[in-house]
Amino acid sequence: MIPMNKKGTITLDHGGGGRAYRELIHTYFLPRFANPYLEKMDDSAVVEIPQGRVAMTTDCYVVDPIFFPGGNIGSLAICGTVNDLSAQGAQPLFLSAAFILEEGFSLKDLEMILIAMEEASKEAEVTIVTGDTKVVPRGKADKIFINTTGLGVVQPGVDISGNNAKIGDKIILSGSIGDHGIAILSQREGLAFDTDLKSDLAPLNHMVRQCLMVSREIHAMRDPTRGGMAATLNEIALQSEVGIRIDEVAIPVKDGVRAACEVLGLDPLYVANEGKLLMFVSPTDAPLVLEEVRKNKYGKEARIIGEVIPDYQGRVIMNTSMGGTRIIEMPLGEQLPRIC
Amino acid sequence: MIPMNKKGTITLDHGGGGRAYRELIHTYFLPRFANPYLEKMDDSAVVEIPQGRVAMTTDCYVVDPIFFPGGNIGSLAICGTVNDLSAQGAQPLFLSAAFILEEGFSLKDLEMILIAMEEASKEAEVTIVTGDTKVVPRGKADKIFINTTGLGVVQPGVDISGNNAKIGDKIILSGSIGDHGIAILSQREGLAFDTDLKSDLAPLNHMVRQCLMVSREIHAMRDPTRGGMAATLNEIALQSEVGIRIDEVAIPVKDGVRAACEVLGLDPLYVANEGKLLMFVSPTDAPLVLEEVRKNKYGKEARIIGEVIPDYQGRVIMNTSMGGTRIIEMPLGEQLPRIC
Repeated sequence: MIPMNKKGTITLDHGGGGRAYRELIHTYFLPRFANPYLEKMDDSAVVEIPQGRVAMTTDCYVVDPIFFPGGNIGSLAICGTVNDLSAQGAQPLFLSAAFILEEGFSLKDLEMILIAMEEASKEAEVTIVTGDTKVVPRGKADKIFINTTGLGVVQPGVDISGNNAKIGDKIILSGSIGDHGIAILSQREGLAFDTDLKSDLAPLNHMVRQCLMVSREIHAMRDPTRGGMAATLNEIALQSEVGIRIDEVAIPVKDGVRAACEVLGLDPLYVANEGKLLMFVSPTDAPLVLEEVRKNKYGKEARIIGEVIPDYQGRVIMNTSMGGTRIIEMPLGEQLPRIC
Repeated sequence: MIPMNKKGTITLDHGGGGRAYRELIHTYFLPRFANPYLEKMDDSAVVEIPQGRVAMTTDCYVVDPIFFPGGNIGSLAICGTVNDLSAQGAQPLFLSAAFILEEGFSLKDLEMILIAMEEASKEAEVTIVTGDTKVVPRGKADKIFINTTGLGVVQPGVDISGNNAKIGDKIILSGSIGDHGIAILSQREGLAFDTDLKSDLAPLNHMVRQCLMVSREIHAMRDPTRGGMAATLNEIALQSEVGIRIDEVAIPVKDGVRAACEVLGLDPLYVANEGKLLMFVSPTDAPLVLEEVRKNKYGKEARIIGEVIPDYQGRVIMNTSMGGTRIIEMPLGEQLPRIC
């Protein structure tokens, strides 16, 4: 094998489709993601998919910083896409991974990111079947951007969509909110809070699979990432043309996240998560589903935090801890850019 | 609809998952790519796929400049991915499209890019079923990067791979080489050659479908993009563990491309294409396949340019126009970065 350049960094040649490109792929990528699909080194992977409905989702990851407490851009790129499939009730099977690297990016950092992708893929039981790498000149990108696109199968009888929330549905939240956004922000700004703030980044497909085994009355699910729980609940209220009522006291927020939000002037409802689910379940099945969520290691803190109501169509209201009622608005933009 | 900011540019809020994001999607993206999958606005699209083998491919597009003679980054992102599926013998069906936008990027340019994507999708008869948009601060990306990931079905009996070239196969090239790379370079460097240099960018799936109707003896196919024909032939020689012999006089190069290459010190064999195919076909079926390629509007100049040989395993040799023989090496990197 030809040695990499002495500085151990990405060069423009690594994006050129020639020898340097092949060397990068064979030295860094293939050993991590070894599987028969990828090893064919064709421009497409050919996979067998069980007959039926297939869910497809795509995301570009541009998080800053690329390493943060609880994960890095690589584990985020796997979990984020696995969770988008899971929230559709699909069992994730195959992922593509495409990289945009900045000239001068550290090969050591690349390796750490690929290791994290390998570990997250193993936990989620997904296979990276095809990929791509581009290199742009220094200053034309910020270190590394990753796109992952995922395929999963949707079992017959599963019909989960942001459009399907029904009046009376109970809303299950799988754990505390705001952990990811606050972990990123504290890392980015070099803020040291006296607590152990860590992203909640996790693949949620096993949790969802367990829930689907006990209920087909899960109508809508979504992982509240950008814009936090406030954006996700507003989206579902709009898409399903229903009202949503949540109870502030029922929503778990870690003390450290709450304290950081107070210092920074942020509302945890609007802060991103990367390992949480909001599930809209019929009132009869909600206790069963809640029990399954709690059995999963990422769902121990799950609670019913609200319900779907006939009033306030397209809006979200919250019963506050002070005994009042507050409209939870769709955020205009992002309090914290480049959170994912 | 809330008006966009007065300057008509992308802001960080457009990437935030809130109201500005929804407005961007509803004003710019949905009207172009309207279809029932996308309009559900879920995080995943659920599609029906015929039973059998599915090809999956992914590419990030970082071309510079984003507008060039013969296309733009949008049409490139559709055709490039369609062609990667086509080269696998798959019929492209569904695409995802994910965007990384730089703060300050012109909404007018975005619209022109989306129009080009719409047109290319229509020509290729593919549907964009899911997408994502991220915004990074000014200076952290270069205007716009696009990832498209494609799914296609592979008919029973089709087994096309870079590993499958067989000794005796004839090599069909679907037209002249180097057009894309030279068009990009002349645009980028502001070079004005006295010829009408234009990218060959085109979707090749209809050409491939026609060929597969007359022959199941197409063993390998690939579109020679980064690194040009030299990189692609070397890859296939290595993957299939065969030798490849090509004839210089048989390879079509447009006069303008040849002249530009001479001025710039480039070899057309190493310059990228975006609308060409190299096909490895059994000697008996090669004339039939050549005839089909020539019937297609993108294949009128197609020729047999070489064959697979038992000697020179893993290497490519060329009979030169001077009567000699030359080894065509795998390029180290890219002569022209950011060509796709």
